[in-house]
Amino acid sequence: MNIAFLGPKGTFCHEAAEKLAGSASELEPFASIEDVFEAVENESVDAGVVPIENSVEGSVNSTLDCLASTNVKIIRELKLAVKQNLLALPGVELKSVRRIVSHPQALAQCRKFLKTIKAEHAEASSTAKACQTLDDESAAIASKLSAKIYGLTVLKEGVQDYAENATRFVLLSKKNESPTGKKCKTSIIFSVKHAPGALHEALKAFAVQEINLTKIESRPSRQKKWEYYFYVDFEGNCESEKAKKALKELEKHAKFVKTLGSYNEA
Amino acid sequence: MNIAFLGPKGTFCHEAAEKLAGSASELEPFASIEDVFEAVENESVDAGVVPIENSVEGSVNSTLDCLASTNVKIIRELKLAVKQNLLALPGVELKSVRRIVSHPQALAQCRKFLKTIKAEHAEASSTAKACQTLDDESAAIASKLSAKIYGLTVLKEGVQDYAENATRFVLLSKKNESPTGKKCKTSIIFSVKHAPGALHEALKAFAVQEINLTKIESRPSRQKKWEYYFYVDFEGNCESEKAKKALKELEKHAKFVKTLGSYNEA
Repeated sequence: MNIAFLGPKGTFCHEAAEKLAGSASELEPFASIEDVFEAVENESVDAGVVPIENSVEGSVNSTLDCLASTNVKIIRELKLAVKQNLLALPGVELKSVRRIVSHPQALAQCRKFLKTIKAEHAEASSTAKACQTLDDESAAIASKLSAKIYGLTVLKEGVQDYAENATRFVLLSKKNESPTGKKCKTSIIFSVKHAPGALHEALKAFAVQEINLTKIESRPSRQKKWEYYFYVDFEGNCESEKAKKALKELEKHAKFVKTLGSYNEA
Repeated sequence: MNIAFLGPKGTFCHEAAEKLAGSASELEPFASIEDVFEAVENESVDAGVVPIENSVEGSVNSTLDCLASTNVKIIRELKLAVKQNLLALPGVELKSVRRIVSHPQALAQCRKFLKTIKAEHAEASSTAKACQTLDDESAAIASKLSAKIYGLTVLKEGVQDYAENATRFVLLSKKNESPTGKKCKTSIIFSVKHAPGALHEALKAFAVQEINLTKIESRPSRQKKWEYYFYVDFEGNCESEKAKKALKELEKHAKFVKTLGSYNEA
């Protein structure tokens, strides 16, 4: 199995890919979330791993938008505890740091810590990429795995604002896979007509079947201004009788419905 | 009136603040969205202006999180068309640009355009701040107003991916204000119990009263992992009989409900 992940090496996504992939898999870093989706969709890889949601910062917008615009399935999910650290080149001290570099989500996860240091903030395409751009006046926010890979020292450990910080990653494939056992989740995208109670009617389909929604999120449709796509996760398999009935009912009220797959947690 | 806005001068937020403020108002730039909220909450200014949502990129997370954590009201909203441009120091040509700097949302709005140029991307705290950090090898993505204020040349006009790109801004105040006329909107935040149909029951309160929801968005509660706050906008005044009934019913099903205000569009 060739598996694409949001690189470079040493990102939390790399760690997630290692846990989601079989031991015989070959892991390949890609430059962006969009690139991972493209590789999965045109089948130049067998599967791909991208972050979808952080427990503090919320959804990863690029991933949600790609799920709507491409034709790939979610076949597994993984929750990974996120511990951010301030890393620098060996010999660099905290007091000489003038610039802190990281991925925007990582910077956002450390907002309180960043307020305690007088330094400008710079965006990198990943936490690992940030580690590769350091000089004597800069530091990166990244994982300990990155410190090891890029030969950096840890100036400060656990700099994320919230101790209970975790990120959900999903394994993507062109082909559907059936989840095993009863404990699984289904992800769908739908849009509703702009009318009173339209979303309520759509959600009623699940309430009637006593299906528990674990998440609802909206994103701009990009088709029309101020029109939204709804991303819903619910407990259970989309092939179950209850889910089939709910989805059939939802289709009556929605402008479109797209099932992203039913999957287990790794 | 002293009005805080997300600065520095020349941001789209500055433009929005000019349109939302009376002509006798004094506009003051603040370094971050959090700082604008703080100034409004401790009444060191009379009002504040922040971006809340972009028609392509979606909600501005910092603003949603501050609306939950502080005690301020939304008293007006404004929709502003966003035209992004690639700006550089006079004399700098497109082919010598190695680095493109802007606010993360502006970079995200120009993803397709950025893919056509071989340059690294750097994050700045605002589009206007990006304009102040330019050298002979860099360019900024920002408004034409910024080009004027910071003496830059326009290398390329209208570089945003979607022509129909607009941002909603809100005017914040410590004190509630009553909207005028019938055409107004109310914003609320609530959370629900983790149970089948809980969100559906919550939304039913509005459906029964035939109140149209114009937006629903979720954000991590930051109180407990994978628990969410729902941000809902609905048509009408929270003081109307229908809305009062709906909110009273909602309170029965929600863990908490917070009304952010009823307001007109400017």
